[in-house]
Amino acid sequence: MSVQPKLEIINLGDELLIGIRENGHLAYLGDQLTRFGLEVQRNLVIRDNPEDIKRFFKDSWDQNDIVITTGGLGPTSDDLTRETIASLLNLELEFHEEIRQRIEDRFTKMGRTMTDNNLKQCYLPKGAVELVNQFGTAPGIFLKKDGKILIMLPGPSQELRPMWNKRVIPLLEEEGMNFTDQAYLQLRTYGLGESALESRLNPILESIEGLRVSFCFHHGIVDLRLSSPNGGLSTEEIEKIGEQCRIELGDDFVCYGHHSLAKIAFDQMRGVEKTLAIAESCTGGLLSDAFTNIPGASKIFAGGVVCYNNDAKIEMLDVPESILTQHGAVSAECAVAMVTGVAERFSTDYGLSITGFAGPGGGTPENPVGTIYLGYYSQVGVWSQKLVFSGERLTVKERAVHAALDFLRRKLIRYRVEDFLAAVGTSR
Amino acid sequence: MSVQPKLEIINLGDELLIGIRENGHLAYLGDQLTRFGLEVQRNLVIRDNPEDIKRFFKDSWDQNDIVITTGGLGPTSDDLTRETIASLLNLELEFHEEIRQRIEDRFTKMGRTMTDNNLKQCYLPKGAVELVNQFGTAPGIFLKKDGKILIMLPGPSQELRPMWNKRVIPLLEEEGMNFTDQAYLQLRTYGLGESALESRLNPILESIEGLRVSFCFHHGIVDLRLSSPNGGLSTEEIEKIGEQCRIELGDDFVCYGHHSLAKIAFDQMRGVEKTLAIAESCTGGLLSDAFTNIPGASKIFAGGVVCYNNDAKIEMLDVPESILTQHGAVSAECAVAMVTGVAERFSTDYGLSITGFAGPGGGTPENPVGTIYLGYYSQVGVWSQKLVFSGERLTVKERAVHAALDFLRRKLIRYRVEDFLAAVGTSR
Repeated sequence: MSVQPKLEIINLGDELLIGIRENGHLAYLGDQLTRFGLEVQRNLVIRDNPEDIKRFFKDSWDQNDIVITTGGLGPTSDDLTRETIASLLNLELEFHEEIRQRIEDRFTKMGRTMTDNNLKQCYLPKGAVELVNQFGTAPGIFLKKDGKILIMLPGPSQELRPMWNKRVIPLLEEEGMNFTDQAYLQLRTYGLGESALESRLNPILESIEGLRVSFCFHHGIVDLRLSSPNGGLSTEEIEKIGEQCRIELGDDFVCYGHHSLAKIAFDQMRGVEKTLAIAESCTGGLLSDAFTNIPGASKIFAGGVVCYNNDAKIEMLDVPESILTQHGAVSAECAVAMVTGVAERFSTDYGLSITGFAGPGGGTPENPVGTIYLGYYSQVGVWSQKLVFSGERLTVKERAVHAALDFLRRKLIRYRVEDFLAAVGTSR
Repeated sequence: MSVQPKLEIINLGDELLIGIRENGHLAYLGDQLTRFGLEVQRNLVIRDNPEDIKRFFKDSWDQNDIVITTGGLGPTSDDLTRETIASLLNLELEFHEEIRQRIEDRFTKMGRTMTDNNLKQCYLPKGAVELVNQFGTAPGIFLKKDGKILIMLPGPSQELRPMWNKRVIPLLEEEGMNFTDQAYLQLRTYGLGESALESRLNPILESIEGLRVSFCFHHGIVDLRLSSPNGGLSTEEIEKIGEQCRIELGDDFVCYGHHSLAKIAFDQMRGVEKTLAIAESCTGGLLSDAFTNIPGASKIFAGGVVCYNNDAKIEMLDVPESILTQHGAVSAECAVAMVTGVAERFSTDYGLSITGFAGPGGGTPENPVGTIYLGYYSQVGVWSQKLVFSGERLTVKERAVHAALDFLRRKLIRYRVEDFLAAVGTSR
């Protein structure tokens, strides 16, 4: 195995090509591999039939040191990957009684009977190691042959991910690969577009030889990754460049690494033992959900209210009816009333609110579709912010959630100042 | 152009290979194309650098009738797709003043200044048609050459999707392609695993020549797609087979087509002008969000409460403290109290609740991590259901949301019976 092995991922499954499901496997494995310096050369998504596997697998196998496949290991008659790849590699399939037993036990535990079509899952190519599947019937396959490695993983992500973490990484470590040290430095930013960010950082980044810079925009966040794939720069040198960028960016710098905006705000509040409640309308629960994706969220997140009509805003959040009639539900006044109401109802230190028109319906000349009002509540005051996003309904929702989390993050950076002012009894 | 053109999708972008983002473009385009009978032969995800584009694009172009690329059209210096592909096709790039004007107008509208690096977006390969970008700066490209079609789309999905719908489909229709009639019949089911579904439908499906059957499992939903790619079966014959399957499946049949479980429940309630409120804990807003993804949701969805701690359940949902101390927050009793409280607070006809342990923390010997209690409220009574899911936190959340929506759907099927009983004053 070379120091920098060539690696490809092949995702099998008609369902990926016909749009039933996003290819989360590539995102997951790509992230896992890249963090530890293994580069994915290319990704292929092909149909799960013997002809296409024959047409494309062999080329991947010949051109690379490691090939990872996902999918095609299920019990239905259209899953033929195991058989086809074993035949391409001139390997026989062998029946494993211990796999049959495990599958039967699993069915028994669920109160179901094992069906005959599960029996095909008990066969592995000769010489392969079973990757035990903790959350499903299909075992994975780890095979060393001709100095190369083949890793075959099951399609459902709740089976694939634990298998990768618990079974595959230890086996790759045995082959001398390093899954401890990260291979690049990521700066997560919010507030600048991709080209504005590049222009702003260009004076720092443009003249450095051996530095690889890449950008990625996702719903308002722009990630900047710094690495030196040819080893021209040391880790310390890259960290020093990262620090220069961080200082240049000021509050537009969110964090190093992969934390979500919700996680950053969560850590800010947890450090000072404060609590948060959320009121939202057009984002419909997505803002609350961003917090509850964090394990241990209940330490700071008391709860939220989704108020989709005016009666609910009055009843659940004590929004005065006069605000709704005078200013409407999409207004700075309503965002402020919602956030005040929810923080008082849940007795929390902070509150965050969103109201707006996500589209396609709604909107007024003054507040067209895509208009969002944010509200922020703390012990020392209440603020609101107006934003306008373009795009379709789901995009506007995602952007609004990120904007609200960033609004909270920036306000919390000022926390110590506010706290001091509140303690000495000075109002702003 | 042949009747069934060969088509590949190439997604460009390091960010897809290094796991910053899921490949939503493949899912979106795959779905769009498949619905109208265009099959994606294969999908390639490659890095956005001239070497890899040279290595892989030409082969795709040579082997197919239509090639669709996504990404690599941005203004930053690492976006070189336009230049490399034009050179591979021996086409010059031409500057288009009308594109520069559009980009400048866009910046002016947003109160920003156009930066010089946007100028590269004004160049198109000679002979190409501009695909006007309504939501971003990068124009798309539509090019006919040597009897083939090249379609180049921008990376952000809020730009790509409207461009596909409004610009590309009309141009493909001009080439004689049909974007009106759907090419397969999909039955969406819930309640059976993939292999149980196959075993149950096998007596109907196994002996039919020329029928293609495919299954896909996503968070408890199993989709069954019936088609006849070689034209052996007529639309009417496939519909007749679908009807046989629908009858065999009973309440496990959800719908024909692509509707979400939330949309199905929405339609059931909207047809009878009823309203719904939601109370959730471990799913943290995701259940409410499922409804608010439906345009016009406010017609039935009054709102929801996310109660992440016990105080919030008492204060916001009137859950009796004695239930929390005697049975705990994860119990059938609590699910019932939550759903009753939320329906009464929001004054709705129906209520739906979820409480459970999504993991990784929490859980008791009786209710381990993955245990979920659902609650359903209607005018004629309140019901609960216990379920146990395996998998990681986000998986458990997704599965719980689908299970709650399916619980609601099955209860609403019985709506007319309940309504009749309520009207004549009979309790069950």
